[in-house]
Amino acid sequence: MIARGGIDLGGTKIQTVVVNGRWRVLGQARRPTPTTGGPEDVAQQMAEAMREAAQAAGVKSHELAGVGVGSPGDVDERTGEVSKARNLPGWDGTFKLGPWLGKQLATAVRVGNDVQVATEAEFRLGAGRPYKSLVGVFWGTGVGGGLILDGKPWLGRGGAGEVGHMVVKKDGAPCPCGRRGCLEAYAGRAAMEAKARREHEEGRKTELFKIMKKHEHDRLTSGIWERALKAEDSLATELIDRAVAALGAGIASVINLLDVEAVIIGGGIGTRLGEPYAKRIVKAMHPHLFNDDNPPAVEVASLGDLGGAIGAAVQIKR
Amino acid sequence: MIARGGIDLGGTKIQTVVVNGRWRVLGQARRPTPTTGGPEDVAQQMAEAMREAAQAAGVKSHELAGVGVGSPGDVDERTGEVSKARNLPGWDGTFKLGPWLGKQLATAVRVGNDVQVATEAEFRLGAGRPYKSLVGVFWGTGVGGGLILDGKPWLGRGGAGEVGHMVVKKDGAPCPCGRRGCLEAYAGRAAMEAKARREHEEGRKTELFKIMKKHEHDRLTSGIWERALKAEDSLATELIDRAVAALGAGIASVINLLDVEAVIIGGGIGTRLGEPYAKRIVKAMHPHLFNDDNPPAVEVASLGDLGGAIGAAVQIKR
Repeated sequence: MIARGGIDLGGTKIQTVVVNGRWRVLGQARRPTPTTGGPEDVAQQMAEAMREAAQAAGVKSHELAGVGVGSPGDVDERTGEVSKARNLPGWDGTFKLGPWLGKQLATAVRVGNDVQVATEAEFRLGAGRPYKSLVGVFWGTGVGGGLILDGKPWLGRGGAGEVGHMVVKKDGAPCPCGRRGCLEAYAGRAAMEAKARREHEEGRKTELFKIMKKHEHDRLTSGIWERALKAEDSLATELIDRAVAALGAGIASVINLLDVEAVIIGGGIGTRLGEPYAKRIVKAMHPHLFNDDNPPAVEVASLGDLGGAIGAAVQIKR
Repeated sequence: MIARGGIDLGGTKIQTVVVNGRWRVLGQARRPTPTTGGPEDVAQQMAEAMREAAQAAGVKSHELAGVGVGSPGDVDERTGEVSKARNLPGWDGTFKLGPWLGKQLATAVRVGNDVQVATEAEFRLGAGRPYKSLVGVFWGTGVGGGLILDGKPWLGRGGAGEVGHMVVKKDGAPCPCGRRGCLEAYAGRAAMEAKARREHEEGRKTELFKIMKKHEHDRLTSGIWERALKAEDSLATELIDRAVAALGAGIASVINLLDVEAVIIGGGIGTRLGEPYAKRIVKAMHPHLFNDDNPPAVEVASLGDLGGAIGAAVQIKR
């Protein structure tokens, strides 16, 4: 039996899995991502979570055929170095994540970009299987994107897929990236939370922060947005409507440029709100589609919560 | 000697060339595109202009290795059919342009999309030669786009490259395509002329229409815009500034998504305004580039006025 490891390194949590040759999950573990310290502290937690998943699967880490990592920041796939992972503590510079983990886990480690890895996983194992070309749109804290063109990942010069920073409204809302009018400025959870806080401070009534406190969170998670929508909170509804409209325009721009077969909607909010909201994104996209008699298929990512970690493991070839 | 023919079918003019094996122009001809009648009348003028260019090159049309056509509208490259060429007279339906011309000229005819053909010509013979991946942005009556990814044209499901209909300003200006906020709504010559006419009718002072009358035109050609800019006409300057800002945002969106090596700026206005305006587009693009430490090269199309026709001929393989 060939077992592979996968690590999904997120801003909030580290998710690990061990999968067999048919990508079935044999063991998994989850740890919070450290919020203080530096890259080595994060890597330490990654190694321990990986060992924990291996133990749950009944193998040792050095018996794994390899471990794949999906990481935020600038990833050098050749060297396993990760730079500018700015939502991780003290990770403004470069850290040799691949080699460091390889030594700790005593197996081959491959590091890839988290969004690209998740896109490939959906393409090979998930909702993207019927298609040869697709765009993955990961609607979460930010809005990430990955491309598969003619069956192969398209990385450009290494920086492709920044769907979240396509301009949907010139001179528009401020984006966490420091620019203006990006898709993420309207649809990213971080940008939506910032706007909700501003409006709340200015006296706007909303259940969002009450639900947050009730669930003992300090930020607006996807689950909190979902609960507020169910409670028909007007601010939450308004901000999600605004996000859906921006996603519709941004995704239409992608389709007008690339005319791919399918759009896979993933990410924390995307998978949590699921099919009904994917349908609303389709409706918002349609008026902007140039070839509106030939729209792409739009599907919700199907690998769920473990998709990122399974996708990371897919990097380890047979 | 192998001689090939090329026909660039535009909304205003039909340009034909005969080129040798090294793409040198041996003969050329130009005719106005009929403004009345139907597809067959247009095709008749194309055939005559092609024969004229052949005569200038000292060959008969049936001696040509083939004739390539760059056509607007929906082009079926397999059958040579052209549909919905809405800026040509009576061409809302489908016309078998390739077979019709093949019979008239007694040689093989290949029909391709005009913008894609021009992009491939710049890639193979023009400003795009140093690059493996690029986007061609044709700034003229509309804003067209063509993609070369990893050395090959990317057509998607046949409708890729609609750079002009990427959304740069959600809920923004009306576009000639009937949608809102498209890049073309700000940068297309047709949209700019419509806005100039509205403002002029509302009393705004401008030299644009005086220059138009002086040169005996009934619409604002690229040359008229250029002259008005040189005369520091405030309306012309304002509208071109607005177009440049929209082009900057739209092209940045393309780069953020695809991270190609180069952007080739062509089209009637693009090549006429040339290098100084390409520099201004770069400046407008920069604040929207996500990887702003690794911008693409931006070059003006180098095949000039005959680029479309030479590009059409490139479809005829050795």
